Amino acid sequence: MHWQIYLSGEIHTDWRDRIEKGIADAGLPVEVVAPVTDHAASDDRGAEILGEESDKFWHDQKGAGLNAIRTRTLIEKSDVVVVRFGDKYRQWNAAFDAGYAAALGKPYVTLHDPELDHALKEVDRAAQGTARSAAQVVDVLRYVIAGRLP
Amino acid sequence: MHWQIYLSGEIHTDWRDRIEKGIADAGLPVEVVAPVTDHAASDDRGAEILGEESDKFWHDQKGAGLNAIRTRTLIEKSDVVVVRFGDKYRQWNAAFDAGYAAALGKPYVTLHDPELDHALKEVDRAAQGTARSAAQVVDVLRYVIAGRLP
Amino acid sequence: MHWQIYLSGEIHTDWRDRIEKGIADAGLPVEVVAPVTDHAASDDRGAEILGEESDKFWHDQKGAGLNAIRTRTLIEKSDVVVVRFGDKYRQWNAAFDAGYAAALGKPYVTLHDPELDHALKEVDRAAQGTARSAAQVVDVLRYVIAGRLP
Amino acid sequence: MHWQIYLSGEIHTDWRDRIEKGIADAGLPVEVVAPVTDHAASDDRGAEILGEESDKFWHDQKGAGLNAIRTRTLIEKSDVVVVRFGDKYRQWNAAFDAGYAAALGKPYVTLHDPELDHALKEVDRAAQGTARSAAQVVDVLRYVIAGRLP
Amino acid sequence: MHWQIYLSGEIHTDWRDRIEKGIADAGLPVEVVAPVTDHAASDDRGAEILGEESDKFWHDQKGAGLNAIRTRTLIEKSDVVVVRFGDKYRQWNAAFDAGYAAALGKPYVTLHDPELDHALKEVDRAAQGTARSAAQVVDVLRYVIAGRLP
Amino acid sequence: MHWQIYLSGEIHTDWRDRIEKGIADAGLPVEVVAPVTDHAASDDRGAEILGEESDKFWHDQKGAGLNAIRTRTLIEKSDVVVVRFGDKYRQWNAAFDAGYAAALGKPYVTLHDPELDHALKEVDRAAQGTARSAAQVVDVLRYVIAGRLP
Amino acid sequence: MHWQIYLSGEIHTDWRDRIEKGIADAGLPVEVVAPVTDHAASDDRGAEILGEESDKFWHDQKGAGLNAIRTRTLIEKSDVVVVRFGDKYRQWNAAFDAGYAAALGKPYVTLHDPELDHALKEVDRAAQGTARSAAQVVDVLRYVIAGRLP
Amino acid sequence: MHWQIYLSGEIHTDWRDRIEKGIADAGLPVEVVAPVTDHAASDDRGAEILGEESDKFWHDQKGAGLNAIRTRTLIEKSDVVVVRFGDKYRQWNAAFDAGYAAALGKPYVTLHDPELDHALKEVDRAAQGTARSAAQVVDVLRYVIAGRLP
Repeated sequence: MHWQIYLSGEIHTDWRDRIEKGIADAGLPVEVVAPVTDHAASDDRGAEILGEESDKFWHDQKGAGLNAIRTRTLIEKSDVVVVRFGDKYRQWNAAFDAGYAAALGKPYVTLHDPELDHALKEVDRAAQGTARSAAQVVDVLRYVIAGRLP
Repeated sequence: MHWQIYLSGEIHTDWRDRIEKGIADAGLPVEVVAPVTDHAASDDRGAEILGEESDKFWHDQKGAGLNAIRTRTLIEKSDVVVVRFGDKYRQWNAAFDAGYAAALGKPYVTLHDPELDHALKEVDRAAQGTARSAAQVVDVLRYVIAGRLP
Repeated sequence: MHWQIYLSGEIHTDWRDRIEKGIADAGLPVEVVAPVTDHAASDDRGAEILGEESDKFWHDQKGAGLNAIRTRTLIEKSDVVVVRFGDKYRQWNAAFDAGYAAALGKPYVTLHDPELDHALKEVDRAAQGTARSAAQVVDVLRYVIAGRLP
Repeated sequence: MHWQIYLSGEIHTDWRDRIEKGIADAGLPVEVVAPVTDHAASDDRGAEILGEESDKFWHDQKGAGLNAIRTRTLIEKSDVVVVRFGDKYRQWNAAFDAGYAAALGKPYVTLHDPELDHALKEVDRAAQGTARSAAQVVDVLRYVIAGRLP
Repeated sequence: MHWQIYLSGEIHTDWRDRIEKGIADAGLPVEVVAPVTDHAASDDRGAEILGEESDKFWHDQKGAGLNAIRTRTLIEKSDVVVVRFGDKYRQWNAAFDAGYAAALGKPYVTLHDPELDHALKEVDRAAQGTARSAAQVVDVLRYVIAGRLP
Repeated sequence: MHWQIYLSGEIHTDWRDRIEKGIADAGLPVEVVAPVTDHAASDDRGAEILGEESDKFWHDQKGAGLNAIRTRTLIEKSDVVVVRFGDKYRQWNAAFDAGYAAALGKPYVTLHDPELDHALKEVDRAAQGTARSAAQVVDVLRYVIAGRLP
Repeated sequence: MHWQIYLSGEIHTDWRDRIEKGIADAGLPVEVVAPVTDHAASDDRGAEILGEESDKFWHDQKGAGLNAIRTRTLIEKSDVVVVRFGDKYRQWNAAFDAGYAAALGKPYVTLHDPELDHALKEVDRAAQGTARSAAQVVDVLRYVIAGRLP
Repeated sequence: MHWQIYLSGEIHTDWRDRIEKGIADAGLPVEVVAPVTDHAASDDRGAEILGEESDKFWHDQKGAGLNAIRTRTLIEKSDVVVVRFGDKYRQWNAAFDAGYAAALGKPYVTLHDPELDHALKEVDRAAQGTARSAAQVVDVLRYVIAGRLP
């Protein structure tokens, strides 16, 4: 069986690259998918394509409308979601994705530092596990998909 | 038809009381429900009831497990969800509830200040409307349920 | 068993009143529900409540966002939907409601003149029947719910 | 991931061809599907195949029954729906398709001129975005699927 | 908890009356519902209400369209379905109801003589039990709902 | 898009072969699937494999249990179901399959002679069309899938 | 809001009575439901009602068929399930109920001694919490439903 | 059509190998999937990957969280589940998987000795058949998938 993994959340560090590399090194039958991770594109493309807005609220809403086509379709088609919370920004979209996955009965794993444990307790509770590093996520996927460790 | 409204999110100001009072004053056929809003209870009752944990992570997980029984059952049984974001704390559980409602196809309205608009753009985009005050939420409910304004 | 009937569509003639009166005269155990049928309210209340918009598109979108809370909740909670098409206006929201009901597996009956038959052929095909008058709709409901004719 | 896009609605201009060409030029991993767009076929094949009817209503119903096999199967299997409204005809089947997609939680984008904005406000509100040209739809798909602009 | 029981199938003997009387005698918290059991009404009311048809096929289809509003709504709202097959007629609608209930995950019990066992083997296999008499059905309901025998 | 078609019902004439040949001649992208059509196998293999039963009822139930694995899995995975009723036998399993498909929202076409119209009126009403010959079914599939006639 | 709680599992100790008494003492708006807990009835009533079987396997299957009508209907209608495992018997039906609830997204709490923790790790992992005593279950329900402790 | 079969339950005998070999010998278009069957890995990998726990309960819960990603994803993607109960251990996870499959409407076959029949009566009742040997399971799959016996 082929697996699809969605990597949700923080877009300012290289965690996605490290997970993708780890999956490739492990030779897992996995396709990795993700939201658009170019911050400016994610914010502005909606209005660029569908027409500029003078009001920032509607500018944002146009971008978010298009981003949601991508994120929800990919979450619904994925087998496992990884939700990453970094130490900056509010990242409410990551928590939104976790809630969305939970309501669909889609398993997800969180990835964040212990400092965030208390604030993320509801999000972690609905997860199948909480990892602290990209390497742990790769180990989780290797075990879950191939039944083995390195 | 009787309506049930779930009030999700921030627990440090009196917005829930003001919405409940507004609904009562308007005479709407509405039952208002909410999570446990006593902060300490919400954090600690799980471990108090099911056994203390030395590790804070599991202490939190025990509380979150019980809280989720309440929050998800009430969201699923409600007709409309109101999700409130305040200016403090990360409030990831509020965003989680919004994602959960969105995946269920349950309509929700957000309630927050304009300062949070950009950070909440995905959460607002999946909402049916964004209010700035408890009074506006009451007006929304009065209009939606009874088809009238004050 | 108590039934809930949703009356969707055209808001410029008294067809809803006639159906409600017919149901009352027949003594059926039915609660009749409907969208907000005050045209101006339906168009403008969203922006009145949540903040005026200079751009007519967003003015309309604010109203439509609130109206959808009402219409979808009522359709999902109803047992039968009646969808009325008049001879004026485009009434795309009525056809939208019909498609929405069809996808939910919710039975609906259309109500329109024969002149519209060809244009409504897809909408009629997914319906359980096509009526030409409010009196026929009442007869349908009396038969379906109580198993009898006048 | 491979995407399937359903193009619903108006059948008298070349908008489908322009979107298909734009997708091909952009090299997107997309299969485009659509209803039968030959107007006469769409009207008459049902009765031609299953038996002619003297009553026009049943002639139409036979055609609509077969068309629905195609349209609903393709909508349910597609990842995104584009719903086009032209300036002629009532196009209730396009609005029906939009309502059908909305109830399934299937994301859709509308494509129409600003003159129709008010009449389509409910249909647009449930959409992820409203485009004014086939080129914009191609840009939306390029961004959503490949994360880039031309 | 209150239970709703749907009695599907054969309409030429008094099996429904006997089950209703047995339920009343047992004092069970049950509402019994059923299709329209007046054969002529079930065949003809659709065309009487919505307009006579010269073609018998469409006459039948109009009646069946209305009957389906009742039967499917009642099956979906019921907790248990009883499906009765008599020794005459083809009773395909009873088997249709059984398949409909099975796909919904709705439990049903069949009621028929052993002579029909082989022909009904697929229908019986998806049932929770096969009864031979109305009295047995009452015993089943008394046991399932109240946990006791007479 | 590739289509899967399930051919349910009567197993004593060559209608399935004729539809399969017609599909092949038309070059449609279709996989045809069906129940086990060897009558003796369908009746007896359950007990042959899982252990003989002295009681004919349980012999039948064992066979029906295995047959249901095949039929329901194939119906759920198919895009369109064709349900054939012949002039002999009671064929309750065909009507059961139709009800099963209807509850899943799976489109189906019936295939039977006009003599059966009245007895099958509920089954036909939930169908997308009623064909009288295998050739008509092929024409329906060619039109629905490829948008053309011979 | 009124809550319904299903008490699944072990039937040889008085844990259900203690939970019911605790709920009554706490004055919670709860209806408690359960399977038939008379062991002999649960085993034998199916065959007593629907006809004795010489083969013990079919005797058991007849009873289990009727019991499943009750247990699955009650689980589906309940808001929370409590699953109790005692120290005797295999209690596979309790684990089956837990899996059934998990697949429905229905929250459940397990109740068992620590000696069973390892053997029940998958069942506990999908639960919202693990209690060791009936009193703890009452405390969980009081907190979840009324937001308070004794 | 390609089939996927999930083999749930007992991990101490070679029944999975025998079924896989039988399927290969029969040349069936089947992919066989299973949980991680290395007992130590299944127990310990969760904590090894995500961090050791001093409390055995949480050690087990970490492993079970990861195992559930695999088992539920594979069950949901499979067409048929085989659930094996051996004569040792409590095997509550096998019964949990059966309940999970039942609630999803996923067909399953049980595999166990007659000594367990009474204790497994609820689990067997919801199954499509009960086999006594791996060879019988292969015969079931060959018949269901290919319509033939050896």
